[in-house]
This record gives sequence, structure tokens and C-alpha cells, in this order.
Amino acid sequence: MPRVKIGVLISGGGTNLQTIIDNTLNGTINGEINLVISNKKEAYGLKRAEAAGIENIFINPKDFGSMEDYNKRLIQEFKIRDVGLIVLAGYLKVLSKEFIESFQYIMNIHPSLIPSFCGKGYYGEKVHEKVLDYGVKVTGATVHFVDEGTDTGPIILQDVVEVKADDTVETLQKRVLEVEHRLLPQAVKLFCDNKLKIEGRRVIISQ
Amino acid sequence: MPRVKIGVLISGGGTNLQTIIDNTLNGTINGEINLVISNKKEAYGLKRAEAAGIENIFINPKDFGSMEDYNKRLIQEFKIRDVGLIVLAGYLKVLSKEFIESFQYIMNIHPSLIPSFCGKGYYGEKVHEKVLDYGVKVTGATVHFVDEGTDTGPIILQDVVEVKADDTVETLQKRVLEVEHRLLPQAVKLFCDNKLKIEGRRVIISQ
Repeated sequence: MPRVKIGVLISGGGTNLQTIIDNTLNGTINGEINLVISNKKEAYGLKRAEAAGIENIFINPKDFGSMEDYNKRLIQEFKIRDVGLIVLAGYLKVLSKEFIESFQYIMNIHPSLIPSFCGKGYYGEKVHEKVLDYGVKVTGATVHFVDEGTDTGPIILQDVVEVKADDTVETLQKRVLEVEHRLLPQAVKLFCDNKLKIEGRRVIISQ
Repeated sequence: MPRVKIGVLISGGGTNLQTIIDNTLNGTINGEINLVISNKKEAYGLKRAEAAGIENIFINPKDFGSMEDYNKRLIQEFKIRDVGLIVLAGYLKVLSKEFIESFQYIMNIHPSLIPSFCGKGYYGEKVHEKVLDYGVKVTGATVHFVDEGTDTGPIILQDVVEVKADDTVETLQKRVLEVEHRLLPQAVKLFCDNKLKIEGRRVIISQ
């Protein structure tokens, strides 16, 4: 099977990106990252890509008249590299309808058990804050395909994290991040091995 | 410590009730069930109570002019027996505001990971139907204290169940029920051992 060309969008430190870099370089994932784009100049993930010899660019949203125009540029960059999978690895900007319609497979990781603690306003530390405020005993992480809603697309993988009585946003985030770092490369690997089939809202994983 | 007097409301088969019966009779739970009330005459849970020598009554909602009047009768029955904990063990009727305000501690078991797949319209098999339709990979069960909302009160215990690719409502319900049968007596035991402390929305469990 040909290796899948992967495009990654980031906004920050890129620890989830790093897990994909590691697993493509060591051959676990049958794919290669062709381009990393950040909407933040200082995103450390750009340095991670650079260190791995992966093309990486900062594209400044402020250089564009609208969110739609910014997204047109992103589409163009990924299209000319013929990527077959877009991965949102901690990308905190909204995607345009055109972007979502331009790529058949866009994968996102969310730091909760969707459909709990997701949707508009639930990103980054806010998710864990709300988990602690609500008082749930279990949270987790979700990898899903992106559709036009916010965190509403078909779910690929989920795994759980126990919420402890003395957890803070920081301690909880740390343990959820460990799950993210396990689930995201696993989902990308399954995709690149052609083992994911979407049936309605359900994602069937072949054995 | 004196044994806690427990009142139980049921509507059906009463397998969750049975787990409390078993764990009070064998001494695991430091409490005793003083009364089981069903809103359904044919509820098999009444027979389970009878077999264990526990007072049990069917009270017909149709004999009352309103839901509020029906609840006044329930309050009266439990109050004259001085119960310190009400357990909803598969009770499918709505409680009145007066009922909820009349008892400090009311416990409910819900067959999902609250706040997912709960609230109005999510009861019994419908919960598992919606879980399968959504395509989540993880579900579970929740024991919580009851407040004036539907499934919104402070969470005592939660545990998870993996959703399998070939699950049906029946197979999923069966595995979730196993978790319910473990969590509910555990929560009642913790309560009767005075190990639950409610702080805001969080339930702190002493070790």
C-alpha cells in the first residue's frame, strides 16, 4: 500500500504532532507528514516538525480579510501536496465549511469523552475545568472525524481517565494528555492501514 | 453506628433492588430496607422484597388526582418509617418537587456516563439505542444524588463499559446492567458507612 500523505494543523506545543512524527518515522504508521501549518508563529510544534525534516509553515490569519480566505489558503497548501488525511493536533481555530468539504478525511482529538464536555467553548484547559466543576468521576479523550459541527463527527477511538478527588486542571490534563498521545497515533495508524470504515455515524474498525 | 433505614422505589424487575437486598442481608451494607414501593402492580421487584421479608406496597398513581398528590402519599409512607435514604432502583416516574425537598438523600442509578445520554427522554433501552446511534466507543453507568433536574445531581460513582462493534441494545444493556449491579450497592454502602460528603457538585468519598 502507498504511504498516506498527512497534513497537520497546530496552534501550540505540538506534543500530539510529535506522536505522529515518531510513529511515521519508526514505520508504525504507514504514512508520512508532508506539511505542518500553524496559525501561531511561536508554536513549538513548528520546531518539532523542523527537527524531523518536515516542511512547516506559519500562516498568519491576520494577513487575510476573513476566516474563509484564510482557510482557502490552507486548502491550497494541502491540496498542492496531495494530502489524503488532515490531522488537527491541537488546532484552536475554526475551520471553514469549504475546508471541511475539501478534504474527505479530517481527524481531530478532543480531551473529553464526547458527547460530554465538547462543543463551542470547550477547548484546552476549559474542558478540564468544566469536568472538575461538574464532578464526574470519569473523563477521557476522543479521536473523531470532523464534520460541520463542533466535535460532532463520527468517533474513531475513545479511552477513559479516572477523575481523582484531589485532581486539579493541571493533574487531570496531564493524565488525559497521556491518553491523547496513545489514541491519536493509533487512530492515524488504523486510517493509514485502511482499517477504518464509516457507516453512518459509526466508525467500524477492521481487525 | 445505627443502621440506615432505606426506602426503595421501583417500577419493574428490581434486579438493582436485589443487589441492595443481598448486601444488606449479608451485612456488607450497614443498613436495612424498610419499605419498597412500586408504581406498577406487576413489578417483579415487589416479589423480591416479599421473598426477603421486606415490607412492600403497590401504590397506584391512577388512584390520585395528580402527580403531586401521588408523591404526597409516597412521602407519607417513607416518613412514617423514618427512612434516611431513598433509592430509585429503576423507578420510571417523575418525582415531585415536594418529594425531592422532603428527603435529604435520594440516590438514582442511570445507565450511561452522565452528562452523556441523560435528561428527559433518556430512560431504559432508549439510552442504549442513542448510545449506539451516536457511535461512542465507551459508555457506562452513574450513581448520583437526585436534585430538581433530570439526572443532574452530584455524581457518586461512575464506571465504564466498552461499546463493541457488534453490540445491540440488548447486549450493551446487559453489560451496563452488570456495572449497575456493582455500583449501586457500593454507593449505598458508602452512604451507610457515612463516607460520602457533598461539596457543591462534587461528592467526596472518604477512604
